[in-house]
Amino acid sequence: MALEFDGGAFFGWQVQPGRRTVQGELERALSTLLREKVNVTGAGRTDSGVHARGMVAHFDAAARLDPRLLEGRLNGFLGPDVAVRGLRRARGSFDARRSATGRLYHYHLALCKSPLMRRRSWYTPGVDPALLPDLTRPLLGTHDFKAFCARGDQRESTRCTLRRASWKPWADGVCLEIEGDRFLHHMVRNLVGTLVPLAKGRWPGPGIPELLAGRDRRRAGPTAPARGLCLMRVYYGTRPAGP
Amino acid sequence: MALEFDGGAFFGWQVQPGRRTVQGELERALSTLLREKVNVTGAGRTDSGVHARGMVAHFDAAARLDPRLLEGRLNGFLGPDVAVRGLRRARGSFDARRSATGRLYHYHLALCKSPLMRRRSWYTPGVDPALLPDLTRPLLGTHDFKAFCARGDQRESTRCTLRRASWKPWADGVCLEIEGDRFLHHMVRNLVGTLVPLAKGRWPGPGIPELLAGRDRRRAGPTAPARGLCLMRVYYGTRPAGP
Repeated sequence: MALEFDGGAFFGWQVQPGRRTVQGELERALSTLLREKVNVTGAGRTDSGVHARGMVAHFDAAARLDPRLLEGRLNGFLGPDVAVRGLRRARGSFDARRSATGRLYHYHLALCKSPLMRRRSWYTPGVDPALLPDLTRPLLGTHDFKAFCARGDQRESTRCTLRRASWKPWADGVCLEIEGDRFLHHMVRNLVGTLVPLAKGRWPGPGIPELLAGRDRRRAGPTAPARGLCLMRVYYGTRPAGP
Repeated sequence: MALEFDGGAFFGWQVQPGRRTVQGELERALSTLLREKVNVTGAGRTDSGVHARGMVAHFDAAARLDPRLLEGRLNGFLGPDVAVRGLRRARGSFDARRSATGRLYHYHLALCKSPLMRRRSWYTPGVDPALLPDLTRPLLGTHDFKAFCARGDQRESTRCTLRRASWKPWADGVCLEIEGDRFLHHMVRNLVGTLVPLAKGRWPGPGIPELLAGRDRRRAGPTAPARGLCLMRVYYGTRPAGP
């Protein structure tokens, strides 16, 4: 199933006891509607406050309910801040996380105060958007992104391939469209948190190529706010099609 | 000054004792910053919950502060849900309300559940968007809109001229773009509240031309929710330019 959610009132994707999470809400809804214990696997674990327009998740169920019927019932059961945007039967081998070949995120920077988008953007006055493309270009391709990985992340490899990292204008600012095969914990937010002071022209530290080479999280910028980040799409199959 | 605000946490535009309103917040901010009693006049009085991206307002002040400086201080003083989007000195004869020659509103209908736009749209499953243009066309031009005017509105004339009333697609639905010389109280919301059941193909009442001719509020549809409505622009001068 494809999912859209407003991350503002969720403690992220992953089930946590006593906290409202997207995975938790989905498992509760599906277990109630299907009258069996249902576990939901997402393509990734979004952090608290991060939004999604195209999260993908799968579950196994014994029940044989019509997918369109189930989608409608789920949307009626779930709160207004999460929606199923398409649900269908998958091949038995499909795994929302392990079958994914790419993810596309958007990060919205507001260059002026933006009341109507304040819950979905980071207000960064003083950023010169003309500087962003050149600053961002060195990230493209395959690199060790250890410098932009949350230090708690214990995964063995910190190598990722970015296929796209471009900035598009929107009404009140610019939006980073960033697509890669995989993303480390906090990776997009740490990249944005480094690019923003660089694009203000007053970052005392090293540039992106030096940071990549140095592999030291402490030398890169702070983690940008979660509310600016949105998981737009998850790709499956060989070469992902552009959106 | 031009203003953007998220109507969600305001009891509308107009000052009311003990309630948070946009006019009230602006008058409080300006009176504090300029150290004189300031009254603010808006181009219109938006209802509780209605948003704005291009409200225009004026005020008189004895203080001679640089407009750009004042704009920055106002934005720092005001909450995150209201922003000044341009402030400049006006001719003495300028009046934000009386000088206005037109207003443009948008009303967003969501045709699928839309978590990220839920605070700015009305979720109306079952609406056939292909029916909307023909249903809406009879509204264009000069008519007596009494059938779509809140019954408490005591203004003498209920004649208005609509120069535009068209539907544009957005990601999760369609948006009514409606421009006219003036709008009666609840007029756009009452029009949308009538068009929506008509576009579901199951409205037992009369069509738009009959409703206009009948001038009876009770025969038209209910008032659509405030959250779907946004004042986009106010026009001044002879013929307003399109946005």
